[in-house]
Amino acid sequence: MAVNYRGFIEEQVESIRRQVGDGIAINALSGGVDRSTVTVLAHRALGLRLRTIFVDNALMREGEPRRVVSMFARMGIKVELIDARRQFLKALKDLTDPEEKRQAITDTFYRDVFAKAVRRTKAKFLFHGTILTDIEETVAGIKRQHNILAQIGIDPQKAYGYQVIEPLATLRKDGVRKVAAILGLPADITYRIPFPGPALAARIVGEVTEERLATVRAATEIVEAELKTTGAFQYLAVLLNDYATGIRGGKREFGQIIVVRCIESTDARKATVTELPWKTLHRLARRITSIPGVNRCVYDLTPKPPATVEYI
Amino acid sequence: MAVNYRGFIEEQVESIRRQVGDGIAINALSGGVDRSTVTVLAHRALGLRLRTIFVDNALMREGEPRRVVSMFARMGIKVELIDARRQFLKALKDLTDPEEKRQAITDTFYRDVFAKAVRRTKAKFLFHGTILTDIEETVAGIKRQHNILAQIGIDPQKAYGYQVIEPLATLRKDGVRKVAAILGLPADITYRIPFPGPALAARIVGEVTEERLATVRAATEIVEAELKTTGAFQYLAVLLNDYATGIRGGKREFGQIIVVRCIESTDARKATVTELPWKTLHRLARRITSIPGVNRCVYDLTPKPPATVEYI
Repeated sequence: MAVNYRGFIEEQVESIRRQVGDGIAINALSGGVDRSTVTVLAHRALGLRLRTIFVDNALMREGEPRRVVSMFARMGIKVELIDARRQFLKALKDLTDPEEKRQAITDTFYRDVFAKAVRRTKAKFLFHGTILTDIEETVAGIKRQHNILAQIGIDPQKAYGYQVIEPLATLRKDGVRKVAAILGLPADITYRIPFPGPALAARIVGEVTEERLATVRAATEIVEAELKTTGAFQYLAVLLNDYATGIRGGKREFGQIIVVRCIESTDARKATVTELPWKTLHRLARRITSIPGVNRCVYDLTPKPPATVEYI
Repeated sequence: MAVNYRGFIEEQVESIRRQVGDGIAINALSGGVDRSTVTVLAHRALGLRLRTIFVDNALMREGEPRRVVSMFARMGIKVELIDARRQFLKALKDLTDPEEKRQAITDTFYRDVFAKAVRRTKAKFLFHGTILTDIEETVAGIKRQHNILAQIGIDPQKAYGYQVIEPLATLRKDGVRKVAAILGLPADITYRIPFPGPALAARIVGEVTEERLATVRAATEIVEAELKTTGAFQYLAVLLNDYATGIRGGKREFGQIIVVRCIESTDARKATVTELPWKTLHRLARRITSIPGVNRCVYDLTPKPPATVEYI
């Protein structure tokens, strides 16, 4: 089915203007293509009546918060950077169960940080980056339902006046990318490899601490630099909780283990492992084991299924 | 230096006969080339006055205890199989620290099982498989000193009459293999890939239990079958303690992670990673993730140093 994406954009801009009227709308940016596209679309419709925030949750990649804010500034869109690192690290302290970690991140984001921003800006309209695949996976029971209003403590039945707007709900990822390109989003957002909601916390097995985040962040930077020209669907680094014996300067040491994962996929529902050249694998191992405290680097050989893309 | 290995064998047989006289000697077999060679050499010198035991410590590979005993039976050498599985599993219960695990295995072997066999057989001569590399590594502080008499509770100063014989103490691994070949040991012992003293316990990160041993044993069998024609120096499977998210039958599951390691080396002091063909890696992943409870298979990319060969 050929979709007229320019027509889609015009319709959505009109529809947003009608719905919001002269009210205030808010949205949260993550650096991903869905939310970035929503931001540009909503900004085109509402201008300064759109308030966009970017929450630094301490789980971002090296330099990511500043990079995203600058990128939108160059497009004439002001993004408010909220430093919530302490709140997230506190919420994650002592948690090792993957579900509890994910829940702590969701709760801190919606109940604490986003709810506060909604109240402060007096916004009655909340933009969400939901795409068709999210809806399908929620219906199929693969993804958890995220009712944004309930999550920020607003009962949609009682709180007359709050509305959630999901401009991309009829598109899949490829459609979103086409809309993003027409809207003039930079290619490194439009074709950015997927990055999970819980960010680097999805790549730490065991407790999420500042020190462990620094380790996985350094590994992520190496993996992204080494593999960006592969054209792979997604590539990432995972820090395990286990330690392995190693030898450094002639002495026995216990070191941490980093998993490198690189996959081929069209929609992330199924994935195969990228057959990286040995030269690249050896270089990854050498660079990653030079991160302080890391003495092992392993490559994940498992397709999806039976593995998932991320580790938690 | 050209060594006359036939001459070496004759000298050692003579020397053992002189030293043991009409006494009783004992040794413990493991299935490795060093101890196997000592067994054949000592049996040639002493015949039935050599008592050889094989201790099933629950940490052996699939079918290994029976296979070793049968192999020596075919060479006319009787080996007593001692089932000490319960003792070892009890000693390892709740231990997760690598050093504590190694110590528990050493103590259970020497203090409990071997000491009892020495007393029962009334042996005053104990054969050991020590080779020159072991002595060099002990001197260099890389290996721990294993004083066999002290370990079985005999004070060499007080207990006049106990003697340790180390017939291979002047040879390195290649020399041992030549002696083994001349003595008629089967090729699968002579050229067997190295297997560590703590056996499969060296390949389990975290607690060693019967269930976890069964998992790493199944993975070991797959790895050895798939990689035996590679000509690699050593190949092994490791069970990590961490769990990762996976998907099975459309449902989320937490599964265990198996590391496959395959290395090239001449003496195990340094090692590089074998560049296995992708076809083999994919097949390993498919077979290993069909082991119940396992949903990830990763390949270790780390040379030695900074990693060691084993994980604990």
